[in-house]
Amino acid sequence: MRKGLLIVISGASGTGKGTVCKKLLAELPEVVYSISATTRKPRPGEVNGKEYYFLSVDEFKTWIAEEKFLEYAEVYGNFYGTPLNKIEERLNRGDDMLLEIDVQGALKVKKKCPDGIYIFLLPPSLEELKNRIEGRGTENPESLSRRLKNAVAEIKIGLEYDYVVVNDTIDNAAAQIKAILTAERLKVARNADKFDFKGGF
Amino acid sequence: MRKGLLIVISGASGTGKGTVCKKLLAELPEVVYSISATTRKPRPGEVNGKEYYFLSVDEFKTWIAEEKFLEYAEVYGNFYGTPLNKIEERLNRGDDMLLEIDVQGALKVKKKCPDGIYIFLLPPSLEELKNRIEGRGTENPESLSRRLKNAVAEIKIGLEYDYVVVNDTIDNAAAQIKAILTAERLKVARNADKFDFKGGF
Repeated sequence: MRKGLLIVISGASGTGKGTVCKKLLAELPEVVYSISATTRKPRPGEVNGKEYYFLSVDEFKTWIAEEKFLEYAEVYGNFYGTPLNKIEERLNRGDDMLLEIDVQGALKVKKKCPDGIYIFLLPPSLEELKNRIEGRGTENPESLSRRLKNAVAEIKIGLEYDYVVVNDTIDNAAAQIKAILTAERLKVARNADKFDFKGGF
Repeated sequence: MRKGLLIVISGASGTGKGTVCKKLLAELPEVVYSISATTRKPRPGEVNGKEYYFLSVDEFKTWIAEEKFLEYAEVYGNFYGTPLNKIEERLNRGDDMLLEIDVQGALKVKKKCPDGIYIFLLPPSLEELKNRIEGRGTENPESLSRRLKNAVAEIKIGLEYDYVVVNDTIDNAAAQIKAILTAERLKVARNADKFDFKGGF
C-alpha cells in the first residue's frame, strides 16, 4: 500500500494560500483537506468544520492540553492549530493530505514530518500583497502595517521549504503545484514496488 | 544567472529512452541535447552529429586518452560516452542539458554531478520490453536473450535514481518528465533570488 503524500502549503499572510488550496481541492478529488482549528472569527461565507474548526480560546486551550495538535501557533492574536486527528491514519491508508499552515506552524510540522512536501507561496510583489490584504477589508491601518512588516520577515523563512511557487494567478500557481505533486509521486523512494519486475511492473 | 538543469534520462536497453528524449526535445525548445559518442553502427535514419557522434574504436580510445568524456562505458561490445565539451559551460550559461545515458554511465555521472536530475525509464512489462527489442530487428536470438537477462539486472539499479517513469506510451512518459522538470525548477534551492523582495519578487 503506497503511503499518501503530506502536502503542506504555506506562505506569508495575504499570499492567497486559502484560494489556491480551494482550487487544488476542486481539481484533485484524491486530495483530502486537513481542516485547521482557529480562534479567529469566521470571514463571510466561512463555515465551521469546512474551512476551519472555529473554536473559542478556552476550547482551543483544552485541545492543546489534550495533545490534539500536530502544531499550533499564535498569529496576530489568534490561535491556529493543525489537529492530529486521522492525519497519520489517512496517510497510511494512501490518502494524500493537504495542510494549509502559517509560516511558523509549517516549519514545526517539517521537523516532525520531514517526508512531507513543503511548498511556499510568494505574492508576485509586495505591492500586490498590500493590495490583497487591504482588499480583504478586515484590517485597520495599524494591523495592515504590522502584517506587511511581518510578511517581509516571513518570506525569508521560505528558504527553508522544498518548493517555491509565485501566486501571480491562481491558475498558474495551481498548475505548478500539480506538477510538483506529479513529480513527487514519481520519486523512486515512493515507488520501490515498480522495480519488482516479477509479474510485470 | 540561474544555472541550467542537468537532466539525465536512463533505463534498461530497449526501454525507449531515445524516442522519449526525441519527443521531449521537440516539445521543450529550451532544452539542449548533449550528443553522446558511440562506436556502434548507426541505425537507419541516424545521422552522425545528431543522434550520436559515430566514432571508430580507435577514435573513441583517443577521446578517452584526451579526457574528453564525463563518463564512458562498454555496453554489448560497443563503447558509449558522454563528451564533456561544453556541458558545464552551457549549464552555467543557464541552458538545460538533456543527457541520454545507459544505466552504468548514468550512475557514474550521478557521482560526479549530484545536482543533476536522474530519471529512470521502465518498460510497462518485461513482455513489452522483449517485443520492443525484437521489433527493432537488430538482434539475433542469442543477443536478445542476453539483453533481456541484463535488462532485469539493470532495472534493479534504477532504485538509485531520483525519479521513475513507466514508458507505457511516449505521450505519458514525456508528460511525466515535463512535470518533473517543472517541479525541479520550482525547488527553493534553485530560486533563492525570489526571496529577495527588494524591487519586487
